[in-house]
Amino acid sequence: MSVTAAQGFTAAGIAAGIKANGNPDLALVVNNGPRLAAAGVFTSNRVKAAPVHWSEQVLRGGTVSAVVLNSGGANACTGPKGFQDTHATAEKVAQVLGGDSNAGEIAVASTGLIGVLLPMDKLLPGVETAAAALSADGGEAAAIAIKTTDTVHKTATASRAGWTVGGMAKGAGMLAPGLATMLVVITTDADLDSATLDKALRAATRTTFDRVDSDGCMSTNDTVLLLASGASGQVPAYEEFAEAVRTVCDDLARQLIGDAEGASKDIRIEVIGAASEDDAVEVGRSIARNNLLKCAIHGEDPNWGRVLSAIGTTEAGFDPDRLNVAINGIWVCRNGSVGEDRDLVSMKDREVRITADLANGSESAVIWANDLTADYVHENSAYSS
Amino acid sequence: MSVTAAQGFTAAGIAAGIKANGNPDLALVVNNGPRLAAAGVFTSNRVKAAPVHWSEQVLRGGTVSAVVLNSGGANACTGPKGFQDTHATAEKVAQVLGGDSNAGEIAVASTGLIGVLLPMDKLLPGVETAAAALSADGGEAAAIAIKTTDTVHKTATASRAGWTVGGMAKGAGMLAPGLATMLVVITTDADLDSATLDKALRAATRTTFDRVDSDGCMSTNDTVLLLASGASGQVPAYEEFAEAVRTVCDDLARQLIGDAEGASKDIRIEVIGAASEDDAVEVGRSIARNNLLKCAIHGEDPNWGRVLSAIGTTEAGFDPDRLNVAINGIWVCRNGSVGEDRDLVSMKDREVRITADLANGSESAVIWANDLTADYVHENSAYSS
Repeated sequence: MSVTAAQGFTAAGIAAGIKANGNPDLALVVNNGPRLAAAGVFTSNRVKAAPVHWSEQVLRGGTVSAVVLNSGGANACTGPKGFQDTHATAEKVAQVLGGDSNAGEIAVASTGLIGVLLPMDKLLPGVETAAAALSADGGEAAAIAIKTTDTVHKTATASRAGWTVGGMAKGAGMLAPGLATMLVVITTDADLDSATLDKALRAATRTTFDRVDSDGCMSTNDTVLLLASGASGQVPAYEEFAEAVRTVCDDLARQLIGDAEGASKDIRIEVIGAASEDDAVEVGRSIARNNLLKCAIHGEDPNWGRVLSAIGTTEAGFDPDRLNVAINGIWVCRNGSVGEDRDLVSMKDREVRITADLANGSESAVIWANDLTADYVHENSAYSS
Repeated sequence: MSVTAAQGFTAAGIAAGIKANGNPDLALVVNNGPRLAAAGVFTSNRVKAAPVHWSEQVLRGGTVSAVVLNSGGANACTGPKGFQDTHATAEKVAQVLGGDSNAGEIAVASTGLIGVLLPMDKLLPGVETAAAALSADGGEAAAIAIKTTDTVHKTATASRAGWTVGGMAKGAGMLAPGLATMLVVITTDADLDSATLDKALRAATRTTFDRVDSDGCMSTNDTVLLLASGASGQVPAYEEFAEAVRTVCDDLARQLIGDAEGASKDIRIEVIGAASEDDAVEVGRSIARNNLLKCAIHGEDPNWGRVLSAIGTTEAGFDPDRLNVAINGIWVCRNGSVGEDRDLVSMKDREVRITADLANGSESAVIWANDLTADYVHENSAYSS
């Protein structure tokens, strides 16, 4: 499973000592080819971590032979020294892998606290340990090693006729996309070039990771990579491949929401009747980020007034007197006013479905969010910076 | 004090039975002239409550003889019946005040739950009770009657040579401006026309109430009114008057932040070195709304990385490698990287000062916000909708 479900990949996850608690904190994913094609998407936060700057450059070449990921430190806002550390990490990976490896084809990803330099005296020996532990079933260990506040590790696989797409993800906080807000590595043994990978990856992330908004906070380190080994010898049709990538991304995105910090509810916000997809996304995101609504949902209170007040802050096309809102299928608001009896709404399940009908067209979008809880506050006021 | 500090005004606050707990819930403010000039600013939420629609029309005439305000129900998202109820309330006030009163000069404001019709069988008799209780020192009672989740009532006064500006405000949640997010009535006995009042009020609110962002949630009912009686016979110079109005607005805005739901910290966010005031406000608001930062401040954790990640989501002009951030005067981030020792920062006081230097110009702005606490979650998951 995970990043070693597809042929041609080995992986490892080990404890390098970056995390004070001794948990696994370093993952290595190696593409053994024959092809080394890759694509990547990164945070749109303008404050980017050193490994994001590095990996964006690496991905420009369309070739990635290995990805090294660490938890326990984001290496963000760490100045020139932080960038040198990322560079040194890539050099170390190239050295220990030997052969044709060169640092310019090694992607680096980091996650953890912002504004702290990585302990290179632990990280670099860790790379050697990880390289020695590489195996064709190391995907699980790699997925475990990239966890921070995640309570579970996240993997997904889509197997098709003769080829496979598999991946791993981490992310539980600072979880709002643009794009990504987390670390994700997806691998495939399909035999495709980097341009095709890039097209399929961008299409998939746009409607999966980019539609996750757990807490409205965009990370400095978001990275989603797609690596192809070509080891299956299969060349799937683009649409078929894109669907498999989307399936894996969607699966991982849902796992991120399901494990968000302190959350007790997963909220599926579907905006329908929009004049454009952009309008639907804008409205969905405004609803997703409304703290008062997030509190109400935590309290299992079908407070549709807070949905309307969130819609009202957007610039989307709608007439306030035609808005309709359903919570778990009950249309509690019709034509901008009181609809069906709110006491009919049951909110006991973890998943809560909000449907907002703008009554202004036929476009739609789904955004996934979480409720706001005292546990979220506790976790994030204690997460020592 | 309050709305009766200025000459020419009477006010009352009574319990009409709109609130189930029997607390005061109806306020009446009457301008006894000789002048009845008025100006108002209202929420920019596109989903507006019935009383906002009504009062916007009333204010177009520039004449307001009385303001009736109720807590215990927002009368928002209540359809045509809600608007009829607002109209009937204004008619009732005109009737009980008698004389030249007409409903078209009665402003109405409501606050409380969205999506519930007001109990008119209690509200209309309450108007009679309030009219009977009108007095020249009723400003305090009026300020008390408009409270919802406010723990204290809020009033402010600025006395100048021969004339006075005084006001009252309510607001503790759904407290992010655009404009206002609360109910405010300000009165003056200066002898000025409605155009002058409008200019001074807009100038004042733009840098006071509009720079308050407690929880990022914009209300459907925000209303700020300024009424002039002319009773002092004084005609102050515009600049002098505008300063007094700004002083009262600033005082009330600070009281709103100081009493925000569940808050344990008041956060003063000053953005300096911006290319434009708009840039400074955009960055300040992004910092103000970052839930992770708000949690960190609750935990007295000078987590400047979360400030940078919030700045990075804006479109303001800046170079990430030149950003500087101070918390309570300690420059913990310099040039986008680690600055002074974060252990030097003390965050024990209720007020926390964040300075974000974009190093890109000479414009600045101050935004006031609150921390995010478990109490906020508890209060807003329990506030029965």
